[in-house]
Amino acid sequence: MPIITLTTDFGIKDHFVSAVKGAIYSELPDAKIVDISHEISPFHITEAAYIIQNAYKSFPKGSIHIVGIDSELNPENKHIAVKLDDHYFICANNGLICLITSEFNPEKIVEINIHDAIVSNFPVMDVFVTVACHIARGGTLEVIGKTISEIKTIKGITPIVNVGNKQIVGSIIYIDNYGNLVTNITRKLFEEIGKGRDFKITARTAVFENVYERYSDAINFNIEKSKREEDGKKLAVFNSSGYLELAIYKSNPKTVGGASSLFGLHYRDTVTISFE
Amino acid sequence: MPIITLTTDFGIKDHFVSAVKGAIYSELPDAKIVDISHEISPFHITEAAYIIQNAYKSFPKGSIHIVGIDSELNPENKHIAVKLDDHYFICANNGLICLITSEFNPEKIVEINIHDAIVSNFPVMDVFVTVACHIARGGTLEVIGKTISEIKTIKGITPIVNVGNKQIVGSIIYIDNYGNLVTNITRKLFEEIGKGRDFKITARTAVFENVYERYSDAINFNIEKSKREEDGKKLAVFNSSGYLELAIYKSNPKTVGGASSLFGLHYRDTVTISFE
Amino acid sequence: MPIITLTTDFGIKDHFVSAVKGAIYSELPDAKIVDISHEISPFHITEAAYIIQNAYKSFPKGSIHIVGIDSELNPENKHIAVKLDDHYFICANNGLICLITSEFNPEKIVEINIHDAIVSNFPVMDVFVTVACHIARGGTLEVIGKTISEIKTIKGITPIVNVGNKQIVGSIIYIDNYGNLVTNITRKLFEEIGKGRDFKITARTAVFENVYERYSDAINFNIEKSKREEDGKKLAVFNSSGYLELAIYKSNPKTVGGASSLFGLHYRDTVTISFE
Repeated sequence: MPIITLTTDFGIKDHFVSAVKGAIYSELPDAKIVDISHEISPFHITEAAYIIQNAYKSFPKGSIHIVGIDSELNPENKHIAVKLDDHYFICANNGLICLITSEFNPEKIVEINIHDAIVSNFPVMDVFVTVACHIARGGTLEVIGKTISEIKTIKGITPIVNVGNKQIVGSIIYIDNYGNLVTNITRKLFEEIGKGRDFKITARTAVFENVYERYSDAINFNIEKSKREEDGKKLAVFNSSGYLELAIYKSNPKTVGGASSLFGLHYRDTVTISFE
Repeated sequence: MPIITLTTDFGIKDHFVSAVKGAIYSELPDAKIVDISHEISPFHITEAAYIIQNAYKSFPKGSIHIVGIDSELNPENKHIAVKLDDHYFICANNGLICLITSEFNPEKIVEINIHDAIVSNFPVMDVFVTVACHIARGGTLEVIGKTISEIKTIKGITPIVNVGNKQIVGSIIYIDNYGNLVTNITRKLFEEIGKGRDFKITARTAVFENVYERYSDAINFNIEKSKREEDGKKLAVFNSSGYLELAIYKSNPKTVGGASSLFGLHYRDTVTISFE
Repeated sequence: MPIITLTTDFGIKDHFVSAVKGAIYSELPDAKIVDISHEISPFHITEAAYIIQNAYKSFPKGSIHIVGIDSELNPENKHIAVKLDDHYFICANNGLICLITSEFNPEKIVEINIHDAIVSNFPVMDVFVTVACHIARGGTLEVIGKTISEIKTIKGITPIVNVGNKQIVGSIIYIDNYGNLVTNITRKLFEEIGKGRDFKITARTAVFENVYERYSDAINFNIEKSKREEDGKKLAVFNSSGYLELAIYKSNPKTVGGASSLFGLHYRDTVTISFE
């Protein structure tokens, strides 16, 4: 039985998430359900796109991912099911998986057309669960939708490379639990454009001239602990998802503050890498 | 093996929830445990009543629901186990399942009397888990308690219908993750009393003359997106649980605000429907 | 298959927790994973130590506990795996399990040395999951690390008993979901030192002369409810984990306040028990 994962903006207080799980177990008593996140900011497609991209990869091939953000059916918001990198995604056609489709071409996209049989104002529970259980039982996408060739993406989610490869102009796409700022600039792009040249990263008043491999690499452990610049040290790092991240060493946004509050940087703010 | 669900006000930071799960797995290694919510406001019976009512329905018949809110045993707070609509509920006798018992007559209610054998100041883990595992193994309610005929309800949780059916006077019983205001007025009551008449819904300064079936129904998709009144539009809707809800289209209470902050309406505030 | 539990400071919004689960299921499709807490304050070793101590006990013998707080490998922060009280713990050697080792001597401690085979800046997913799955499959600790004899503890986490046993001077180590203040003074220490003498507990301006067995014991149910001192009543209690706790009866820190806000007491503040 493949794993079914859930990513939503339902929060964890309301009954919505558990109602979805109950519906899955009612259809598939042996289902294996894993929460990815239910704390996506309401209707925040970019946050969801970042989280689902970096979560799905560690799940086994064949897993089925329900992504329930802004999923009410309307003339501008259709439901799709996508096969891609040997995983299945069920969501609205609103850009939610555009970070994944920037890496992998979908093998199959269908626009779900089982709605006539389902009257619902809770489509994640009624439509997406039905589709997920169909796939989990080995059903094909063609049975629950008609093939389409393209899905929507989010404008401005990828960085811009200036003429002559002198600059990468990216932006902040996610702020994590530690208050660290995740940019949309990947290590891959950085290395392709930079080709080993010296560089300077600027974001508002913050400037960085190194990108570390790990947070601890910013600390000089040869200096005695009491004299060492450590907690609160600012640094740039390639995070575990391969994105450039502007961080504070061992930050806690609820007490001393994190990179977001300390640098005064927020979602969508610009981050520029200038090469020599 | 039936599903055991958990609904508590323990929060998800403390060790309480996992201690309960560990205790269940220690007794029943193959248990299937599903979280409904652990973010009920501390000791908030009404919130819990709304959530458990709308979550339990999607679980398979035979499921066992532990509801751990205000569950310390004392002379005014006894423990009960209830069979109802082919589901089992284990909780304190303090009104937690009164929204469900307003729809379904219990088949069986027992006041749990296994406390002599259990010294505990963590009754959800010690008493409720023991009872849940007993039921999961096929045990009967009579073994763990003595039959009683009635359970407590919450005063003022149901709306009032004025003489002559001119008005339904309800109140706000829950505020959801989007800041939307759930009233205690059901679609069923609305239709029975209204019988198709025109109506006006008032709550403080907010007024509504339609109730939509879905949030998107409030939006006119024939108007070009840039000219359309959309995000931030106020609306009344029958939510997926069948309750009248006062909402803001695509609200985010942490940024632009939700219906609660924008209408200045809170838990227990009055919502009136006046029919022509 | 033994249970694998997860305790981290990752929060539940980011993809980290689900990525760890996906990695476990990819190695062990039949794994049983239970969340203990992901809401540990970032890098807060003491909070994690309190939570893991009081959660692990209710899990079956043989369970494997991944504790991912401040787990980046660096010269001062090595990775360990510990067998203790028939449970396994996988974490950094930074004091995370020192409350457990104050009760139980480890049967076996190894410093994990599989890092050459794993290049990672997400050690919980890459290193700890590998070790956990190895143990779950019945592997021994010697295969994944070299035996060491001692692990780090946290300074100042245990209370001080004054000369002549006149005073126990402890401190607040945890504030729970209800805002109640958990001290590091156990019932066992209190009884050993107090030997039944009268006592006075002081913490800033709050004074207590009784310690209750249950919260409800502070309430006199013989007095009519409307005249009774009840909600908001301050009390000291031995909590379900056996620690002295300073509490407010039925508090809600988000509305009326909890013991922490009402007493003006915070993490690390001193709590003194003076015996007659």
